[in-house]
Amino acid sequence: MTTRTDLEIARAARKLPIQDIGATLGIPAEALLPYGHDKAKIGQGFIRQLGDRPDGKLILVTAINPTPAGEGKTTTTVGLGDALARIGKRTAICIREASLGPNFGMKGGAAGGGMAQVVPMEDMNLHFTGDFHAITAAHNLLAAMIDNHIYWGNTLEIDERRIVWRRVMDMNDRALRDTVVGLGGVSNGFPRQTGFDITVASEVMAILCLAEDLDDLQVRLGRIVVAYTRDKQPIHARDLKAEGAMAVLLRDAMQPNLVQSMEQTPAFVHGGPFANIAHGCNSVIATRTALKLAEYVVTEAGFGADLGAEKFFDIKCRKAGLSPSAAVVVATVRALKMNGNVDRADLGAENVAAVQRGCVNLGRHIENLRGFGVPVIVAINHFHSDSAAEVQAVQGYAASLGAEAVVCRHWALGSVGAEELAQKVVALAEGETARFAPLYPDEIGLFAKIETVARRIYRAGSVVADKVVLDQLAAWEAAGYGGLPVCMAKTPYSFSTDPTLRGAPEGHVVPVREVRLSAGAGFVVAICGEIMTMPGLPRHPAAETIGLDAEGQVEGLF
Amino acid sequence: MTTRTDLEIARAARKLPIQDIGATLGIPAEALLPYGHDKAKIGQGFIRQLGDRPDGKLILVTAINPTPAGEGKTTTTVGLGDALARIGKRTAICIREASLGPNFGMKGGAAGGGMAQVVPMEDMNLHFTGDFHAITAAHNLLAAMIDNHIYWGNTLEIDERRIVWRRVMDMNDRALRDTVVGLGGVSNGFPRQTGFDITVASEVMAILCLAEDLDDLQVRLGRIVVAYTRDKQPIHARDLKAEGAMAVLLRDAMQPNLVQSMEQTPAFVHGGPFANIAHGCNSVIATRTALKLAEYVVTEAGFGADLGAEKFFDIKCRKAGLSPSAAVVVATVRALKMNGNVDRADLGAENVAAVQRGCVNLGRHIENLRGFGVPVIVAINHFHSDSAAEVQAVQGYAASLGAEAVVCRHWALGSVGAEELAQKVVALAEGETARFAPLYPDEIGLFAKIETVARRIYRAGSVVADKVVLDQLAAWEAAGYGGLPVCMAKTPYSFSTDPTLRGAPEGHVVPVREVRLSAGAGFVVAICGEIMTMPGLPRHPAAETIGLDAEGQVEGLF
Repeated sequence: MTTRTDLEIARAARKLPIQDIGATLGIPAEALLPYGHDKAKIGQGFIRQLGDRPDGKLILVTAINPTPAGEGKTTTTVGLGDALARIGKRTAICIREASLGPNFGMKGGAAGGGMAQVVPMEDMNLHFTGDFHAITAAHNLLAAMIDNHIYWGNTLEIDERRIVWRRVMDMNDRALRDTVVGLGGVSNGFPRQTGFDITVASEVMAILCLAEDLDDLQVRLGRIVVAYTRDKQPIHARDLKAEGAMAVLLRDAMQPNLVQSMEQTPAFVHGGPFANIAHGCNSVIATRTALKLAEYVVTEAGFGADLGAEKFFDIKCRKAGLSPSAAVVVATVRALKMNGNVDRADLGAENVAAVQRGCVNLGRHIENLRGFGVPVIVAINHFHSDSAAEVQAVQGYAASLGAEAVVCRHWALGSVGAEELAQKVVALAEGETARFAPLYPDEIGLFAKIETVARRIYRAGSVVADKVVLDQLAAWEAAGYGGLPVCMAKTPYSFSTDPTLRGAPEGHVVPVREVRLSAGAGFVVAICGEIMTMPGLPRHPAAETIGLDAEGQVEGLF
Repeated sequence: MTTRTDLEIARAARKLPIQDIGATLGIPAEALLPYGHDKAKIGQGFIRQLGDRPDGKLILVTAINPTPAGEGKTTTTVGLGDALARIGKRTAICIREASLGPNFGMKGGAAGGGMAQVVPMEDMNLHFTGDFHAITAAHNLLAAMIDNHIYWGNTLEIDERRIVWRRVMDMNDRALRDTVVGLGGVSNGFPRQTGFDITVASEVMAILCLAEDLDDLQVRLGRIVVAYTRDKQPIHARDLKAEGAMAVLLRDAMQPNLVQSMEQTPAFVHGGPFANIAHGCNSVIATRTALKLAEYVVTEAGFGADLGAEKFFDIKCRKAGLSPSAAVVVATVRALKMNGNVDRADLGAENVAAVQRGCVNLGRHIENLRGFGVPVIVAINHFHSDSAAEVQAVQGYAASLGAEAVVCRHWALGSVGAEELAQKVVALAEGETARFAPLYPDEIGLFAKIETVARRIYRAGSVVADKVVLDQLAAWEAAGYGGLPVCMAKTPYSFSTDPTLRGAPEGHVVPVREVRLSAGAGFVVAICGEIMTMPGLPRHPAAETIGLDAEGQVEGLF
């Protein structure tokens, strides 16, 4: 236990020079492009040489459905990584980069917490190595080229009403959600309605995270569908000759970033796609590189396992040929109580019955993960108010499903607090029981894929969609996009599309309100509910209290 | 002479590790924050320790009015810096950073040319160390906080019609010049008309370039006037409590960047404000740091001397207490011919009479620069088609004004080609004849300052302005802004406001169409003509041919 803030703990961390961190994985100093003394990018040339090496074991950290009580998924990812290193495994942690904009809205954004953090924390929550800025630039260059093409005569016959490529900014700016551009007369082009998303929602972000290498990146960028003609023929980024310049802007950003945990475990922090309209995991190139260099790679996926793990398996693992050895489901007693319908204000009091009620949420996730052929272990991320009886209730429930549930205290103690979890993860992974397979084959129809996820993962009774949605899916199938996986966008707070429905609902109806094609990333997004792609700032944004202290250190960011 | 492209030459440059470059100026490796192996930021802590050291000599490189024939101001800045190093002076070059967006419009953007370039050229024309992205983020955070304040109740009573803070993007995107934001209903705020400028036009850029240190930066950011109330009272960034978070976003960007010329001369490349609505020079912190570390610091100012040098003297030197030792006016025979009204197509043929006619432009600049108390030398940036008689015509003309004009061949030969120039610059600087003084005192009225520049530098007969402009200036004087210098925004192609009027016009009328307050940067902008703050892309943007080659190298950018 500690009463210091995450930032104070992070600042006190003993950091090794980044070259020393690279050396623990056998990366020579000349293959590292340093950004300051504690961050580096791993050179493409070095990565290309790794092709023949065998892969280490890939461990996915996922969680029950998130609640305001928190589960500590990233914290557990870091703690498990540190603990695997502690017990002698050459380990790498793979997590996502943080978006800059939201840090100026609500405090937060740390990479882990307590004694299980990745550092340098401030840099990671500000500009880091500039990857998201590069994505913003590449995305907006394409947008500028679309309007510029129309301005100079529109030889591609783009229908200005059917431009689907918006602009992006890494900022919480609700005023930009819905805009008109091109006002002001002839020299400014043609007025049309459009808007901005936050950068992490950019398809360019998803592409960067799924591309195998620079060549694949450029090809995928070229495939982006930016607009349609009046007769609904797609216009691609390559039709505008934009993909080369976009790849140039993303060249450095494609190189994975290397940092370290507070216990000096190497951490790859690379990419950060939205977990709703995109797949929500760190980059394929970072995960692959880590697997070539480490015996154990610990990674995480966004939201709960119903969204994050499903997409990790069905999009990232399917497309990148990854085969996870085990999955860790993070749960907290408090979050299980909330799934047992306890109010947040009442979480402090012992309530074994509520824990037992909430465990159905955990159980559903365990069952789903096993459905992908991946063995499962539960990490009970310990909070000081947890009672022994409550913890035993979780362990007993897990045992009834044949799963172990290990109490972890990495937040308070660092790696020693997750040593038991690490030992059991190793046993599970080295047991070689994993037989990973995605949920559905490439060949079935797009709507059938949506239905498969909804019925088998969300346990919905039915999936409904308007004719316009079904027609759109059919049109994409006819255009050759039928083999793509689906990327589900729904509330993370429930298996259903109703965020208040905790526990393990079943038989509900999943409405597909809209579908979007991410032809470059390689998936079709199915939007089941309200999805916000440009957040706003709260009444009193964190920005009001963020500043530099007398020593030039950041204060108020966390 | 060489037939290789600038990019090919730059790629073949023998670069030293950036720590070795720092060492030539006595910067210890631990004071450098590396960005890759050939770029670094100089730590604030190290810079703070330099306070007591004596300053080196500051040499300004400026030019005649630009023409399509080019003058090679940056190339001469680099060549002179290399030549000063060659003759044994501890030298630093100080230039601006390049804007990313325009490189995707027209080819170009190199830092120097031929054998006189700063490297790494590609990085410098792409994301470099991320400074401009940080400025974009800080600027747009403030914009988001304005609309957010109104959304949550507008307790400051901002008049939505009088918001003067636009948004920025480092992209040539004409469709963003004039926009409506806040559409889409209650949850997106209040619709209003606004627009985007390119990032280099941001007042945040000007502030970063004029701030003394992080504390001063934060104070200046707080002073920005973003809007007015219905009764025309200014609303500042500090009223929104935005300046702390903006300073946090700019903390790294405030540290000067160190790179090297192809001859391994240290080069500070930092900041890049517009040369029209801002002052057009590299940062004060970079110039000051360079002066503490080098015997000679060679820097440049944007456009011709009528705009660039005047602002360098009256804004940057005045406010930062800098005292230049000499000014170099770059001229080419070809550009002088164009000032002598020769068409671009006819520049290849010898035309001594045209050179002589065009020399009046050079002469006017020499006279103006001397008016600031700074001794002047002319650098004739040699082009292979220049005839001996043409060169002699320039030299004879300069001699008639008591100035030397030295032929320079640094483009073709590197430092050896500018050795004579370097020797003569040293003689001039060590002659200690400089008695620098700005053109006008702080105390005179704002319109009187505009008139002083127009009459004494542009040789205008009169300055005209509508009552609304005069009233605005009077209102700012009443509000305490009367002591600020003025920042003139007019065409760079002529001393007058008519871009076609080459040579040395006089007696013309300068119309002040609009005035803008940059309270954070600390100047009042006087707009005399059409000023574009968001460029567009051409019919066939360079982006269409930019890409990565098989080795992952950038092609088509230059």
